[in-house]
Amino acid sequence: MTEPEPSDADMQRRAEEDLVDRVLASFDGTPDERLRTVLRSLTSHLHSFVREVRLTQREWDAAIAFLTEAGHITDERRQEFILLSDVLGASMQTIAMNNEARGEATEATVFGPFFVEGAPRVELGGDITGGARGKPCWVEGTVADTAGNPLPGARIEVWEADEDGLYDVQYDDSRTAARAHLFADEQGWYGFWGLTPTPYPIPHDGPVGRLLEATGRSPMRASHLHFMVSSAGKRTLVTHIFVEGDPLLASDAVFGVKESLVKRFAEQPADAPVPGGREIGDRGWTRARFDIVLPPEE
Amino acid sequence: MTEPEPSDADMQRRAEEDLVDRVLASFDGTPDERLRTVLRSLTSHLHSFVREVRLTQREWDAAIAFLTEAGHITDERRQEFILLSDVLGASMQTIAMNNEARGEATEATVFGPFFVEGAPRVELGGDITGGARGKPCWVEGTVADTAGNPLPGARIEVWEADEDGLYDVQYDDSRTAARAHLFADEQGWYGFWGLTPTPYPIPHDGPVGRLLEATGRSPMRASHLHFMVSSAGKRTLVTHIFVEGDPLLASDAVFGVKESLVKRFAEQPADAPVPGGREIGDRGWTRARFDIVLPPEE
Repeated sequence: MTEPEPSDADMQRRAEEDLVDRVLASFDGTPDERLRTVLRSLTSHLHSFVREVRLTQREWDAAIAFLTEAGHITDERRQEFILLSDVLGASMQTIAMNNEARGEATEATVFGPFFVEGAPRVELGGDITGGARGKPCWVEGTVADTAGNPLPGARIEVWEADEDGLYDVQYDDSRTAARAHLFADEQGWYGFWGLTPTPYPIPHDGPVGRLLEATGRSPMRASHLHFMVSSAGKRTLVTHIFVEGDPLLASDAVFGVKESLVKRFAEQPADAPVPGGREIGDRGWTRARFDIVLPPEE
Repeated sequence: MTEPEPSDADMQRRAEEDLVDRVLASFDGTPDERLRTVLRSLTSHLHSFVREVRLTQREWDAAIAFLTEAGHITDERRQEFILLSDVLGASMQTIAMNNEARGEATEATVFGPFFVEGAPRVELGGDITGGARGKPCWVEGTVADTAGNPLPGARIEVWEADEDGLYDVQYDDSRTAARAHLFADEQGWYGFWGLTPTPYPIPHDGPVGRLLEATGRSPMRASHLHFMVSSAGKRTLVTHIFVEGDPLLASDAVFGVKESLVKRFAEQPADAPVPGGREIGDRGWTRARFDIVLPPEE
């Protein structure tokens, strides 16, 4: 009996599998066990992708050019790799995994690139807009634990874009606007004046923008208002609230929308009592309620 | 009958799978079918990786920082994304797939970043070194098709590093050295004087170098001499030959070594006849043979 000669296809498959094995084995000496695990999984999926689509040399060239351009457009104010992770849903998946479902706890969503440390403090009922333009919005709610007990003194950071779809840090001056922090009262209640959220595009004049265009996808984010909420012994929550009825809810460019985070931003009639007796112009105002539930820390 | 409440773990799994489905569906409108296929596969494997290792937020941050640094170190003379693809074996896998096994055809390996268009022509038996330093090496062989017929006039491009492990383009002057092209004769024969290959490290002062260090891997490439061979109607071959006995053969940083490409670079005795009667100094010289077989074009 002689072994049959392997076919070209057999030889090809063996060569490809052998290469994967050799690359995986190259990480055997990694002292850090976690790094070894991550790199082995990355390598394995990378090769599976390349083999599954039978990547051509030209496509490989295009991938290198894409990453190179993403690297070159990235600077202190622009982060194309985060955008890439966002539009592929990898950012949202990471958030989902690091904020595992826990009973009635409020859901998390993407952090985004526009948070700034050291935003000003406002008093309860105060105004976070700092002169940013847009339709006023009264936002209030409570912060509680999963057993329903209020969390007095919970810290609430909020930030949002103005009516032109821009955050303060996207302007060339060094303004601070439409961002602040405040603390819940003894009943866990909070309330503040902000802006009714409006939709805006993620930066789309780079390679990620071209990717969206080539795939017929919109760069628009659904209208939203960012929250980061923390309280001692509780898991810190990073999330948004979205605007009920926004047609972009179904096509948010970064997959950040969760049904439980969609809130009614109710238009207020001209004669509605205004919280804090604030003077409102003739543009009207909206109000929204967001009750927040924090699970215990891991 | 009422449905049992889903557990937190069920809800978590469903949320993660639902996200993957939404990202995949976002590519449904991609007009180019191939692009849609590639992006769906990429997305699918990216999410599988992230979920399999339960990527932490801190690891995600580290990945963004790694890519950002790779982007910033990349310029006209340095390509960190190619190095990354190389050390993860993705470059070699792409080469393997685009040069499928075909009978006795010579195997391909990585192209590398050091090829230059327009290298000088040398006559058969000529010297490609252009003044580059190293131990002389006589290389010869034949170019034939898979049926054994010679391929007269086949074009052979060769390039290699000098004894300091540097290619001409890595020097700040604009020298051209240790690269050339030549054409096989009527019998498909070729021969030239080059340098006995020496090992060298891939550039390792950037993030890819740190990755290798953290995983206990060496940045060294096994000693090699590059070939690109073409002939009308045949698949162009991009490959290297490696040096038998080189201790780096088993740990080449970019997984380029294939057993069939390892050749004997035989040290020549002082009284051995020198091809072309060339004057050799007292350093001695080596000789190697590389017979090349090109398969038909696809």
